[in-house]
Amino acid sequence: MTTGRAFTVEPWCLRELSLDLDTIAQSESVFALSNGHIGLRANLDEGEPHGLPGTYLNGVFELRPLPHAEAGYGYPESGQTVINVTNGKLIRLLVDDEPFDLRYGQLHEHERNLDFKDGVLRRNVTWTSPAGRTVKISSTRMVSFTQRAVAAICYEVEPVDGAARVVLQSELVTNEQLPDGSADPRAAAVLEAPLRPEHNGVSGERGAVLIHQTARSGLRVAAGMEHRITAPDDVNLHMTTESFDDLARTTVTTVLQPGQKLRLVKFLAYGWSAHRSVPALRDQVAAALAAARFTGWDGLLAEQRAYLDEFWRGAAVEIDGDTEIEQAIRFALFHVLQASARAEERAIPAKGLTGPGYDGHAFWDTEIFVLPLLTYSVPEAVAQALRWRYNLLPMARDRAQQLGLAGAVFPWRTIRGEECSGYWPAGTAAFHLGAGIAHAVVRYVKATDDRDFEREIGLELLVETARMWRSLGHHDTHGQFRIDGVTGPDEYSAIADNNVYTNLMARRNLFAAADCAERYPHEAGELGVTVEEMATWRDAAKAMTIPYDETLGVHPQSEGFTSHEQWDFEATGNRYPLMLHFPYFDIYRKQAVKQADLVLAMQTCGDAFTPEQKARNFAYYEAITTRDSSLSASTQAIVAAECGHLDLALDYLAEAALTDLDDLHSNTKDGLHMASLAGACLALVAGFGGLRDHEEGLSFAPRLPRGLSRIAFRMQVRGHHLRVEVTGEHATYTLDSGPRIPVLHHGEKLVLSAGEPVTRSIPAAPDNPVPTQPPGRAPRRRQ
Amino acid sequence: MTTGRAFTVEPWCLRELSLDLDTIAQSESVFALSNGHIGLRANLDEGEPHGLPGTYLNGVFELRPLPHAEAGYGYPESGQTVINVTNGKLIRLLVDDEPFDLRYGQLHEHERNLDFKDGVLRRNVTWTSPAGRTVKISSTRMVSFTQRAVAAICYEVEPVDGAARVVLQSELVTNEQLPDGSADPRAAAVLEAPLRPEHNGVSGERGAVLIHQTARSGLRVAAGMEHRITAPDDVNLHMTTESFDDLARTTVTTVLQPGQKLRLVKFLAYGWSAHRSVPALRDQVAAALAAARFTGWDGLLAEQRAYLDEFWRGAAVEIDGDTEIEQAIRFALFHVLQASARAEERAIPAKGLTGPGYDGHAFWDTEIFVLPLLTYSVPEAVAQALRWRYNLLPMARDRAQQLGLAGAVFPWRTIRGEECSGYWPAGTAAFHLGAGIAHAVVRYVKATDDRDFEREIGLELLVETARMWRSLGHHDTHGQFRIDGVTGPDEYSAIADNNVYTNLMARRNLFAAADCAERYPHEAGELGVTVEEMATWRDAAKAMTIPYDETLGVHPQSEGFTSHEQWDFEATGNRYPLMLHFPYFDIYRKQAVKQADLVLAMQTCGDAFTPEQKARNFAYYEAITTRDSSLSASTQAIVAAECGHLDLALDYLAEAALTDLDDLHSNTKDGLHMASLAGACLALVAGFGGLRDHEEGLSFAPRLPRGLSRIAFRMQVRGHHLRVEVTGEHATYTLDSGPRIPVLHHGEKLVLSAGEPVTRSIPAAPDNPVPTQPPGRAPRRRQ
Repeated sequence: MTTGRAFTVEPWCLRELSLDLDTIAQSESVFALSNGHIGLRANLDEGEPHGLPGTYLNGVFELRPLPHAEAGYGYPESGQTVINVTNGKLIRLLVDDEPFDLRYGQLHEHERNLDFKDGVLRRNVTWTSPAGRTVKISSTRMVSFTQRAVAAICYEVEPVDGAARVVLQSELVTNEQLPDGSADPRAAAVLEAPLRPEHNGVSGERGAVLIHQTARSGLRVAAGMEHRITAPDDVNLHMTTESFDDLARTTVTTVLQPGQKLRLVKFLAYGWSAHRSVPALRDQVAAALAAARFTGWDGLLAEQRAYLDEFWRGAAVEIDGDTEIEQAIRFALFHVLQASARAEERAIPAKGLTGPGYDGHAFWDTEIFVLPLLTYSVPEAVAQALRWRYNLLPMARDRAQQLGLAGAVFPWRTIRGEECSGYWPAGTAAFHLGAGIAHAVVRYVKATDDRDFEREIGLELLVETARMWRSLGHHDTHGQFRIDGVTGPDEYSAIADNNVYTNLMARRNLFAAADCAERYPHEAGELGVTVEEMATWRDAAKAMTIPYDETLGVHPQSEGFTSHEQWDFEATGNRYPLMLHFPYFDIYRKQAVKQADLVLAMQTCGDAFTPEQKARNFAYYEAITTRDSSLSASTQAIVAAECGHLDLALDYLAEAALTDLDDLHSNTKDGLHMASLAGACLALVAGFGGLRDHEEGLSFAPRLPRGLSRIAFRMQVRGHHLRVEVTGEHATYTLDSGPRIPVLHHGEKLVLSAGEPVTRSIPAAPDNPVPTQPPGRAPRRRQ
Repeated sequence: MTTGRAFTVEPWCLRELSLDLDTIAQSESVFALSNGHIGLRANLDEGEPHGLPGTYLNGVFELRPLPHAEAGYGYPESGQTVINVTNGKLIRLLVDDEPFDLRYGQLHEHERNLDFKDGVLRRNVTWTSPAGRTVKISSTRMVSFTQRAVAAICYEVEPVDGAARVVLQSELVTNEQLPDGSADPRAAAVLEAPLRPEHNGVSGERGAVLIHQTARSGLRVAAGMEHRITAPDDVNLHMTTESFDDLARTTVTTVLQPGQKLRLVKFLAYGWSAHRSVPALRDQVAAALAAARFTGWDGLLAEQRAYLDEFWRGAAVEIDGDTEIEQAIRFALFHVLQASARAEERAIPAKGLTGPGYDGHAFWDTEIFVLPLLTYSVPEAVAQALRWRYNLLPMARDRAQQLGLAGAVFPWRTIRGEECSGYWPAGTAAFHLGAGIAHAVVRYVKATDDRDFEREIGLELLVETARMWRSLGHHDTHGQFRIDGVTGPDEYSAIADNNVYTNLMARRNLFAAADCAERYPHEAGELGVTVEEMATWRDAAKAMTIPYDETLGVHPQSEGFTSHEQWDFEATGNRYPLMLHFPYFDIYRKQAVKQADLVLAMQTCGDAFTPEQKARNFAYYEAITTRDSSLSASTQAIVAAECGHLDLALDYLAEAALTDLDDLHSNTKDGLHMASLAGACLALVAGFGGLRDHEEGLSFAPRLPRGLSRIAFRMQVRGHHLRVEVTGEHATYTLDSGPRIPVLHHGEKLVLSAGEPVTRSIPAAPDNPVPTQPPGRAPRRRQ
């Protein structure tokens, strides 16, 4: 089944049946392959045409100056930008001396297929050259989950209608020319030729290696390739390999008869380091290639499949009634896995490794959107991601000191750990990031019971963020603890007092730090924590200011927010996103919301609001939220579901899930929106599943919209699998193994035992008036 | 009498008795000459050594890109920077082939003297060359108030102890090499060789002309010189003049016997235009030189003296008890006159034309500090300055439209009129600027009764600023009119709601516009003003929100300000100004004040506060104001005096008056602080004279501090001179001519008739507790 869209609707893959050159950059993002360590955009094997060539290595960046029209104390002067490293995906083909280029000749078939179970990108092409020779080409590309330094491509070519002289050039190309940059602040800075050659050589089995170094960040990058070539026995092959500064090339030349197939398997390996020498990296890449060759192409495929079988066993999602959404959610899960699986003490960037958007930086949304999903599906990736934050602590302490604060201040946006935000009102001032990290620690420990992690990693993160909050806030004359002049999640407000999200999250952070220090008094003592300090954390948390507008009966997003002028949405027309059409000064001082802020507070700290407050707040903020941020829809879906707006919740879930597949923000070309993809999955689990992990423990409040007849999802809790199945009337909870666990079902306490499904009926949804959105900003109706 | 300072204390001049190379850049600023049209820094005649070479023409600038680390809608992309134009001050001297350079040989005498009555800078030097020949050199330099395109120098050299071969090179030099720029955001951007040669030629009487154009701003600049040379009859002179792209040079060679004097009078003229051609500018300069030559050196001197006699007749200030302050106030008056006398529909920049600080930009402080002084001393300069704003209206309307506002938004900082602020929270958001302009219009019209100006210029300025306020603010649900998300005068807060200064000034602006439109219904109608629109202005003004903290009994500077954390002044040490040592995020969210904000509101809108509120507010803000801005002390002086803190007021007056003479902000090298100089004069007149021009008309409330036994000042009111003399016990008001005018003396209504002095006794000062300042930030005690 196909829709009017680019992709067919199928449950376990994403398939494109033809190539649209106008949207090629978008397709390069959605078909991108990654394991969190290496990322390959889905550039065509032959390199061109392309939207944006991209090969990324987690943590490889170049520095660039951050210019300021007017300088200020503490402004970062240097930014970090992800760079396109040596491209190993390239396999050029000549047919009778004509380069295979889709823009010439005749294209009969062009299909690409990202397989969520096999973890590979397949491509099938039938093409007639301008001279009239028809060939079939197929390729299968993978980035290995099991061998993290390795990618591989199997490329086959076969003439259809007559003998053809075929030349394959399998290459490593460094410093590819990139398209010009964009003025959109969300796009990346473009750096010309960021890699300086250090070493090149031919080696191994039809292999070569190129080693480069970045000029300013001093990172050394090695890329190696080796090949296995298969052809019918009677075919005469000529093969050469050569290497230069920015190019290594293995050339295979032959003549094929119709039906004869030339098959080239290309093993790719990358190594990079800020410290290791040229010989060390050369050997590291050679070793990775040796291991890959030993495993073999089929072996790599089998490992990949086994890895994904295990993943889906713990994270499977079924949705009856909307296959497109089911596909989109699986697409989302697959990409979130790709972004995080092997990130291993490096960042999970906002775009994963699918594109250079936001300069390849990681932000707060990793902890708030991506890690909650991973906590219940790939918990070990959460531990790794938080270890990365832990490793940043020395830098974060320095930054806190520079800002006059105690504890640690994590960077708003970064690759290596230094603050790279060039606009402090929406960067430095967004201190809520720290509480998001603390929140992720608490959630991970609760879900896994990983006490070693809590003691070794979690405690210090909690303590240092709590210290930051304690020094950032102060008590007023009435004894209330205030946090003034900060920016909450909503980027259409800035530098406000007592942002509710920030204060609630800070409160939880302070309590959690005190509780954790109490559990590990010895380790806390080593961090200098005293009982007096713990008392000041608890005191501040208890006295935390949470503004409330008694007249309207809603929480102002920040103090005074509800007194501000209403944004004139009627006059706005289609000038969205607002930030590209209106000045910040105007946006900040009016009631216009880019992304759910108070609504996010009601999700993450839902136990701080009554159901009536939630309903009123949700309706109030629905009317003024533009969803100009891709971080918005999933949160709105979750709270809409809780407030009984189930159809609306489905609309928002669909918006989050289709953000990239339908290119809703017109910038999927720069990479996928990882947080939105993760958020779509959360919208299912926390929205229609009603999952919460507040103080009272794991709770569910499942309810389906009219458009879905059944959903089922699996999650890992303390190493065991919990399956939740929801229909219109009932919910069934099944624990596969392990000790009994208590959960709440719509407030009713259940105790789940392994292998004993528990079914409960679903109470009627609360009946709140359907809220409205700003004119023209209602989500696309799902049905 | 001399002090330990650089300058002698004398009532009518500023004299320096020796040259300190370490502070030469500061002296170049304080001895600078200008008429508001041309500005010459006091670089030595021979060019070197120098601190910062500077020749400025009002309105001549170059464009430079304004880089933004993260771009945003409506950010200006191009800045304007004042440039050092062709230097015509240069007269190099060789004595027996040794260049006269103070760094070599022996300097016996070096005196410079800026004469406030003659309006010239005199220099006397006795120097022995390294080879042992002693010469006396004297020069007198002027920038003519009466011939605005003209400057002139009379240079004399005379051997003392033996015959000397003397060579004078009188030059025009373009694109002088400048010292490297500074990281201080208050300094200027340095542009290399901004002028491109277009024409050079030898002409007239030992004259030459150079014409250049700026590359990006497209401004054409012509500089011309001519000379008159006088020597004893028996002296043989050889003279040549030559010209090149960036250099024109007249050379005079002779041999002088001891006692024989060679005298060179150099007439300089400048012309510049964005539109006029090379021939037109060449002829314009030639014409100005012809007029100057016709007037002659002695004639120029006489005109200058006559101009200043007239100025001092209307603006004379006498202070008994503190000659240093008397001198400083006259110095201040003289420089404010120099900055504004002939600006004529161009800006009065923050530094006048004395240096490149703040890129040569004009800010809000022209209207708030400089124009109040000029209104009562050089009212025609006020009309000219406001005409400049009037001419900017088309640009200001465009800017308002870009920002989504009605009416006109004037640039926070500019030379030609475009917004050049690279940091919007302290630029665009500081909308109070518009009310400052309106305020200046109202004050000027009240003081001069210039109804033509009011109808032709003032009305439109009032209407367009009122429209801006009406669209910037909004009514809340309680019917209060709020102005949210703006920045008041204090630059240590930003983007706050209902800044009291802003709201009070906006209120006055709205009322004034409605009243003025009512006076000129026909002209207002042509501007599209309806009675309904006028009603909305008055309605908004009446409903204006003025926040008040009932608990503390003080006005918060902005809503919520008094709830913010107190700045930890104890821990601050000597890390002032705060903005160079702490991040904005930290400064903005705490109670630390850079410059009087609420206190300025109590000065400009004093009728909105009770005396008790003023006393409490003043004490509150005294304790948290750092005076990191040179705009602070004068305002604090005025309100301190009103609150009865007369000695403190004198301390602040002295601080304002000595800002540049004592280089209190360590940046006088970049130019004088015009607003602080004007503010010092205001501190005298509005502080110890108690002058206010609120609704009730001209009022005085004179009172002297213990340190002063008598002050007297003159001011122009409706074209007539009013003299106010104050002693410890009495005040005497004398009107020199014209119809009767009513004034208030400490609330008592007096009617003054020409030639009939009225004397009244001075009531006791209010007895308020002496306020304190942040530790280490108390002003220097005057006695």
